[in-house]
Amino acid sequence: MSKPLNPAPAEVTVRWLNPVGFDAYDAPIAELLARIKQAGTRVEMVSFDMPATPTHLEYRSYEALMTQRIVECARDSGQTGVDAMVIGCFYDPALEEARELSGATIITAPCIASLSVATQLANRFSIIVGRHKWIEQMSGRVQRYGLQDRLASFRSLEMGVDDFQREHKKTRARIIEEAKRAVEQDKAEAIVLGCTIEFGFFAEVQAEVGVPVIDAVVASFKQAEHLAQMKKQFDWRPSRVWSCEPPPEEEMQRFGVYQSPPALRKLSC
Amino acid sequence: MSKPLNPAPAEVTVRWLNPVGFDAYDAPIAELLARIKQAGTRVEMVSFDMPATPTHLEYRSYEALMTQRIVECARDSGQTGVDAMVIGCFYDPALEEARELSGATIITAPCIASLSVATQLANRFSIIVGRHKWIEQMSGRVQRYGLQDRLASFRSLEMGVDDFQREHKKTRARIIEEAKRAVEQDKAEAIVLGCTIEFGFFAEVQAEVGVPVIDAVVASFKQAEHLAQMKKQFDWRPSRVWSCEPPPEEEMQRFGVYQSPPALRKLSC
Amino acid sequence: MSKPLNPAPAEVTVRWLNPVGFDAYDAPIAELLARIKQAGTRVEMVSFDMPATPTHLEYRSYEALMTQRIVECARDSGQTGVDAMVIGCFYDPALEEARELSGATIITAPCIASLSVATQLANRFSIIVGRHKWIEQMSGRVQRYGLQDRLASFRSLEMGVDDFQREHKKTRARIIEEAKRAVEQDKAEAIVLGCTIEFGFFAEVQAEVGVPVIDAVVASFKQAEHLAQMKKQFDWRPSRVWSCEPPPEEEMQRFGVYQSPPALRKLSC
Amino acid sequence: MSKPLNPAPAEVTVRWLNPVGFDAYDAPIAELLARIKQAGTRVEMVSFDMPATPTHLEYRSYEALMTQRIVECARDSGQTGVDAMVIGCFYDPALEEARELSGATIITAPCIASLSVATQLANRFSIIVGRHKWIEQMSGRVQRYGLQDRLASFRSLEMGVDDFQREHKKTRARIIEEAKRAVEQDKAEAIVLGCTIEFGFFAEVQAEVGVPVIDAVVASFKQAEHLAQMKKQFDWRPSRVWSCEPPPEEEMQRFGVYQSPPALRKLSC
Amino acid sequence: MSKPLNPAPAEVTVRWLNPVGFDAYDAPIAELLARIKQAGTRVEMVSFDMPATPTHLEYRSYEALMTQRIVECARDSGQTGVDAMVIGCFYDPALEEARELSGATIITAPCIASLSVATQLANRFSIIVGRHKWIEQMSGRVQRYGLQDRLASFRSLEMGVDDFQREHKKTRARIIEEAKRAVEQDKAEAIVLGCTIEFGFFAEVQAEVGVPVIDAVVASFKQAEHLAQMKKQFDWRPSRVWSCEPPPEEEMQRFGVYQSPPALRKLSC
Amino acid sequence: MSKPLNPAPAEVTVRWLNPVGFDAYDAPIAELLARIKQAGTRVEMVSFDMPATPTHLEYRSYEALMTQRIVECARDSGQTGVDAMVIGCFYDPALEEARELSGATIITAPCIASLSVATQLANRFSIIVGRHKWIEQMSGRVQRYGLQDRLASFRSLEMGVDDFQREHKKTRARIIEEAKRAVEQDKAEAIVLGCTIEFGFFAEVQAEVGVPVIDAVVASFKQAEHLAQMKKQFDWRPSRVWSCEPPPEEEMQRFGVYQSPPALRKLSC
Repeated sequence: MSKPLNPAPAEVTVRWLNPVGFDAYDAPIAELLARIKQAGTRVEMVSFDMPATPTHLEYRSYEALMTQRIVECARDSGQTGVDAMVIGCFYDPALEEARELSGATIITAPCIASLSVATQLANRFSIIVGRHKWIEQMSGRVQRYGLQDRLASFRSLEMGVDDFQREHKKTRARIIEEAKRAVEQDKAEAIVLGCTIEFGFFAEVQAEVGVPVIDAVVASFKQAEHLAQMKKQFDWRPSRVWSCEPPPEEEMQRFGVYQSPPALRKLSC
Repeated sequence: MSKPLNPAPAEVTVRWLNPVGFDAYDAPIAELLARIKQAGTRVEMVSFDMPATPTHLEYRSYEALMTQRIVECARDSGQTGVDAMVIGCFYDPALEEARELSGATIITAPCIASLSVATQLANRFSIIVGRHKWIEQMSGRVQRYGLQDRLASFRSLEMGVDDFQREHKKTRARIIEEAKRAVEQDKAEAIVLGCTIEFGFFAEVQAEVGVPVIDAVVASFKQAEHLAQMKKQFDWRPSRVWSCEPPPEEEMQRFGVYQSPPALRKLSC
Repeated sequence: MSKPLNPAPAEVTVRWLNPVGFDAYDAPIAELLARIKQAGTRVEMVSFDMPATPTHLEYRSYEALMTQRIVECARDSGQTGVDAMVIGCFYDPALEEARELSGATIITAPCIASLSVATQLANRFSIIVGRHKWIEQMSGRVQRYGLQDRLASFRSLEMGVDDFQREHKKTRARIIEEAKRAVEQDKAEAIVLGCTIEFGFFAEVQAEVGVPVIDAVVASFKQAEHLAQMKKQFDWRPSRVWSCEPPPEEEMQRFGVYQSPPALRKLSC
Repeated sequence: MSKPLNPAPAEVTVRWLNPVGFDAYDAPIAELLARIKQAGTRVEMVSFDMPATPTHLEYRSYEALMTQRIVECARDSGQTGVDAMVIGCFYDPALEEARELSGATIITAPCIASLSVATQLANRFSIIVGRHKWIEQMSGRVQRYGLQDRLASFRSLEMGVDDFQREHKKTRARIIEEAKRAVEQDKAEAIVLGCTIEFGFFAEVQAEVGVPVIDAVVASFKQAEHLAQMKKQFDWRPSRVWSCEPPPEEEMQRFGVYQSPPALRKLSC
Repeated sequence: MSKPLNPAPAEVTVRWLNPVGFDAYDAPIAELLARIKQAGTRVEMVSFDMPATPTHLEYRSYEALMTQRIVECARDSGQTGVDAMVIGCFYDPALEEARELSGATIITAPCIASLSVATQLANRFSIIVGRHKWIEQMSGRVQRYGLQDRLASFRSLEMGVDDFQREHKKTRARIIEEAKRAVEQDKAEAIVLGCTIEFGFFAEVQAEVGVPVIDAVVASFKQAEHLAQMKKQFDWRPSRVWSCEPPPEEEMQRFGVYQSPPALRKLSC
Repeated sequence: MSKPLNPAPAEVTVRWLNPVGFDAYDAPIAELLARIKQAGTRVEMVSFDMPATPTHLEYRSYEALMTQRIVECARDSGQTGVDAMVIGCFYDPALEEARELSGATIITAPCIASLSVATQLANRFSIIVGRHKWIEQMSGRVQRYGLQDRLASFRSLEMGVDDFQREHKKTRARIIEEAKRAVEQDKAEAIVLGCTIEFGFFAEVQAEVGVPVIDAVVASFKQAEHLAQMKKQFDWRPSRVWSCEPPPEEEMQRFGVYQSPPALRKLSC
C-alpha cells in the first residue's frame, strides 16, 4: 500500500485542449493557467493545427468538425504521459468519446467541473450563456450530470463567443447584469459562466454580485490538476471495463485508424 | 392550403447512410430497401469513401471518426434535394449534429425509429444488442427519447457486429434464444433488434417468438420514407429556430468549413 | 422471408374514429383525409350512433361516456379487417384500453402521433390548446410518452372546441398569435395543434410563423396509414402477451360482453 | 371559523362502489365494512345493475365497460349527499374521471389509499398482484402517485381474481409465500395486497410475515371515512377549478348526458 | 381475525410535538386540537424543555438543535403508549430519524399529511410559505414524497414565523392575496399553508378563495388520529425490518444512548 | 483580479470531523491523512467529546445524536479559520445543515466526494456497504446528487462498521468478493467503498479487481483540500443567499443558541 499513498503530491502534467483550430485565446489562457497552477504542475496548452476552422463552437455542426481530433488528442495524451486533459469548451464536447481512448489519462471538461464546484458552494445555480441557441444542448449536459433540479436558470447575454473578449468593459457589465437577475429573479445562489471564453471576469463579477461566480476555465483546470494528482497518488485512473473498454489495439491497427498523433499546436507554459 | 395537401403521395428521395467506410453491407441492405420501398421512392445508398475505416461502430471512438462525415453527408443531402436521410447505426450517432446542418432534409435514425414503432405495438420492449459494452450508451439514447420506463431489458448476444452476417443460422438461433428470454423472463412484449447489421432475421424470429420483432433497418427506412412524404405533402421540414438554427452560410464560408461535398460511395437502387 | 417483405406497398384500410356522437365534422375531416391519403388507402370515417352525446370531449366525464364505445369500435376494427384505427381526439382517450381488444388492428391517436412527428423536426415544441382546463390532463399524456423535457409550453387559445370552426379567420388569428408567443417567449421550435378540431389551419399558421406546425388530424392519420402499411408488409401487428393480452374469447362470451358490434355512423370516402 | 371546526366528528356517509355488475362479494365486503366503520358512519354498498358483466376487471377492456357507470355513480353520490366514495378496484379505475363529476363527494380508491398508509409505516413496499398481466398498468398508477422509488417489487400469485375467495387456505398460503419472498429477496418493508378481492387475509399474513400488510379494502374504506369526516368538519371538499372543473349543468342538460341516476344495486349496512 | 377488526373505533393517544423549546403556541394549538379531535382521542401537547431555544425553525441549523430531541421524543412516545405522534413543523424535520426509534408509535408530519389531503381534493396545489429561504428545502420534501409534478408553485408571504400570529388581519390578508395569485396565475387548484404557525386562517381563506385550503396543523393531527385508530384496529404499526430496523436495545444500553426520557413540557387537553 | 489568482497554492487548513464520540479510528485516519496531504495543508482531526456515544452511525437515530454537534463543529470551523471540513461518514450526515452555519468554511462529505471522483473515471459504479440496512438511506443520497442512473448496484458485506478494522484479512477478502461480483454481475466499472471505516483497503482491492476503487476517506479529504485551495485562490466560498442564508447573529445571540464552541477532541497531525 506504500506506493499509492505517496505523501508528496506528485508532479503532474495537465493538458488544456482548446478544441478548435483558432488559437487567439491560447496564449492568454495559458498565461492564466500558469498563474493558478500548483508548482509541480506542468501545463500543456494545445489547439488543433488545421487548415480551416471555426473560431468558436456555438453550433453542433462546428463541434462535429472537432470530434475526431478531440479523441485523437485524448489518445495522444494517453500515449505521451499526460495525467489529465481538459476539453476546453463548456459543451463538454466529445467527453465520453475521448474518455474511451485516453488510456491512463483522465479526461474532464468545463461544464462537469464547474457544476461540481458550484454545488459544493450552493444549492442552486444559474448558468450564463452567450445565446439562447446554446441552452437546449447545455440542458442536456446538466441533465446527464443529474443536476437539473439544482439549476435555477439559464441566462443569456445575447453575445457570441467571439464578442466576449472584445470589449471587456461591456462584457463584464452584461455578465454582472444577468448574474444579478439570476440571483434576484431566479433565486440563484451561485453563478456559473457557461463558456470558457468568458474567462477573466469571474473575480470582478463575484465581488459585485456577492455570490460565488465559477469561471469554467479555472474550475476545470484545477479539477484536472486535482484528478491528476490523485491518479499519481492513488492510482485512480480511468476504468477500462464494460462501457469504458477501448477498441483493441490490434483492431485499430488492422483498420488503420488512430495510428498517428493528431496535428496539434502546442504552447509551453 | 392547396399545395401542402397534395393528394398524390409525392415522389421522394430517401438516403440511407451506412456511416462507415466499409461497404460490404451496402449492396444487401440496398437490395432489402429496394424490396420494401414504395414505388415512388428513390433510394440512395451511400457510405464513406475513406482511406482507413473500422468495419463497425461498436466503440465511441470509432463513431468519432465519422461524426464530421455524417454531418457533411447531412449537409450534402440538404443541398442535393434528398428528402430524408437515415444515419444507419443503432447508436443514432451524430443525430442531433446532423439535423442542425441538413437544411430541408429530415434526418432520422434506427433507434428512435424502432422504438417509435415498438411502442405503438406494445407497452414494453427489449433490445437485443451484440455486446454488454453497448448497453450504457444505448441506455442514454433510450433515456433521451423518454422511453426508459418502457424498456423491459437489454439482452446481449455476445457477438460482434462483424459476426452477425457470418453464419446466419447461428445468429438467428442466438437472437431467438435471447428474444425468448426477454419475453419470458423480462416480460418484454416486443423485441427490437439493436443493430442495423442484425438485418434479415426479424421475420423468422417474429414467427418463432410470437411477438413483434422490429428490424432497425426496415423501421428506420420506412419512417424516413414516411417523413419524406409528409414533408412533400405538408411542408413539414426541420425547424430552423433556436437550438435548430444552423451556422450562417457566410460564416461557414469565412471559416472555410463545410464548403465541399464529402467523399461518398454511392449505390443506385 | 419473401412474404413479409412485400415490395408493393399494401392496400390498407384506415379507420378514423370521431369518438363522439356528434358528426358535424365527419364530412369535412373525411374530405381532408381523402385528399391526403395514398392511393391504396381505404378510409373509413366513423362516429358513434348514440341518442345523446356531447359535441366535444373537453371534460374527462364526457370522455367517460365514450370509453366503452371506443373499445367496442377497436374490437370491431379487428373483426372487420381494419389495419389501423385513429381515436380522433388529442387526449388520446382510451388508447391503452382500445389497444387491448383491437386484435390485429393497430390503434394510434393524435397526441402520440403529433409529438412523434414534432420531435423528428425540432428539439422542443409547444402545444396550443383550447382552454387551460385541458393542460393538466394533456401533461399526463406528454409525460406518459416521455417527452416532458421537450415540451416548451402549453399555450391556451381560451376558445372551446365548438368555437374553432365557427369563424375561421378569428381562430386562425388566435392560433397565429399564440404560436408566435410560444416561439418567441417560450422558445418553441415547433408547434403542435392540440385538438383535432383545430384542423384546417396548420398550413397558413406554418407559413406565417415559420416553424413546423403539426396538425393533429393529418399527423395521426398519416401515422396510422404508415403503421398499417408496415403491418401488411412486415406483419408488425399488436403484441398480445403480458400487459397486451386480451381477455379470452370464451370468457367474454360467458360474460356476455363485447359480443356485438357497436352502433356506428359510417361515411365512405 | 366556528362551523368548520366542529368538535364532534360528523356523521358521514361513505359509499363503497364495487365497480362491476357481479355482486357475489358485495355482502361479505359490506359485512367487513360494517365491522370496521366508526359508529357515526353510514355505509352504502353499491354495484352496477347491468344485464351482462365480467366478474372481475383484470383487463383494461373490462374496465372500459364500467367507466361511464363509475362516473355516473360518482355524480349520483354528489347528488344524494354521499360524503366520500371508494371505487373498489385496485387499478383505481376512472378515478380522475369520477372526481370531475362528483360534486361535493370526495372520491378515493384502493391503490392510492393503500400506498398512502404503507408509506407512513415503511420506506419501501411490495405489491402482491394476481397475475403478471396487471403489473404494467399498476406501475403506471404507482408512478402517477409518485411512489415508484419506494416500490420494492411486484410479486404475482399467478391466480385470477375469481380464485382468491375460492379456497381460502390455498390463497392465504400463496400470499404468505410471495409476501415472504418480497421481504426476504426484494427487501420490502411492508406488503400491499394489490386487489380488493384479496380481502380477509391481511391479519393472518401480517402475523405470519411480521411486517405491515395492507388490505386494500380496509385501507381505502377507512381513508374515505377519514376524508368524509374532514369534509364535514373543515369543509374540505373537491376543488372545482382548472382541471377539476366539471362541465356546466346547462351543457349536460342540452347534450342530454348525465341526466339520470345509474342503475345500481344497493345493500344497506 | 376478530381482534384486528375491532368494530368500535379504538380510544387512541395522539401526541403533538411542537419541536422547539418555545411554547407560546402550545396552548392555542392544544385548544384547536381539542376542538377537532374525536371523542375517544386523547391529545398530548408537548414541547421541549430546554434552556435556550429558537422560537421557530426557519433555518436548517435551528432544526439541527432539535433532531436528537425529536428522536428522543419519538422513543418516549413508543415507550409510553402513544399511538401516533406529529412532528409539528412543515419541514417534517427528522421524520425518518424519528420513525426508526418510535417503537409501535406511528410518526407523521405536516407536509406529508397536508399533501396527502390536497392531492385527494385537487390535481395541482400551491404551498404558501413565509420566506423564499424555505423553498429549496421544502422542494426536497415534495420531491421525496413524489409530488413535484403536482406542485403548481410555492408562493412566499415574506413574513417570518414569528409574524404570523401577531396581526391576524394582516396575515390573513397576505395569505388571501398570495393564495389568489397561486390560483389565478399558477393555476393552483388547492392551497396548502406551508407552516404550522399559519394555523387559524384556513377557513376564512378557503371561504374567500374558493378552493380547498389545507391547514397543516389540522391535516396532520387528523391524519395521526386516523393512523392511530387503524393501528389499534388492524395492528398496522411501523415496519421494523431493513431500513426500518432500530438499533438493538442492548447496544443502546451499552453505548449509554437513548436511556432516559427527554425533558418535555406537557400540556393536557 | 490579482488577489484571487494567487499563483502559489495557498496554505490551507482542512478539518476531518469523525462525527461520533468514539475516537479509536482518529489516530489511524489522521496518520493516513498526514501521508496523503499536500505539504501546505494543515490537518485537524476532531471528534466529539461526549459522555456517551455510539461507536458507529449505522442507524438514523445514532446520527440524530450528532446533528447538533456536527453543525456546531461547522460553525466552529468557520470561526477558527478552517478552510474546509469533511463530515467523516458516508451517509454525509447533516451536510446541508452544517453548510448553513459554516461561515466561510466549505463543508463536504464522503459520499458526494467519492461519487464525484468515480464518475470522472467510469460511467457506472457500485457501492459496497456494510449491511442491507444502509441501502435505502444511501440511495436517497445518490438520488439527491443526481447519480442514480450511474449506480450499477449496492453490494452488502453483511458486516458492521465495528467489524471492518478487526480482521483486515477477512474484511479485504469480503470486499474483493463483493467488488468482483459488482463488476461481473452488475457491470460496475468502478467501486466505491461506502463507509469511511472501510479505509485502508482500496489499494489492494483495486490491484485485485482491476477497476478504480474509491476510498471514501481519501476521496473526501482530497476534495476538501482541493476546495480549500480554490477558496484561498479564487475566493470561492459558500454562498450565503436564499437557501444558503444563515440565521442572523443577533437572533442566535438573543435565542442563546450556537453561542459557544462544541466539546471537541482534537488530534494534531
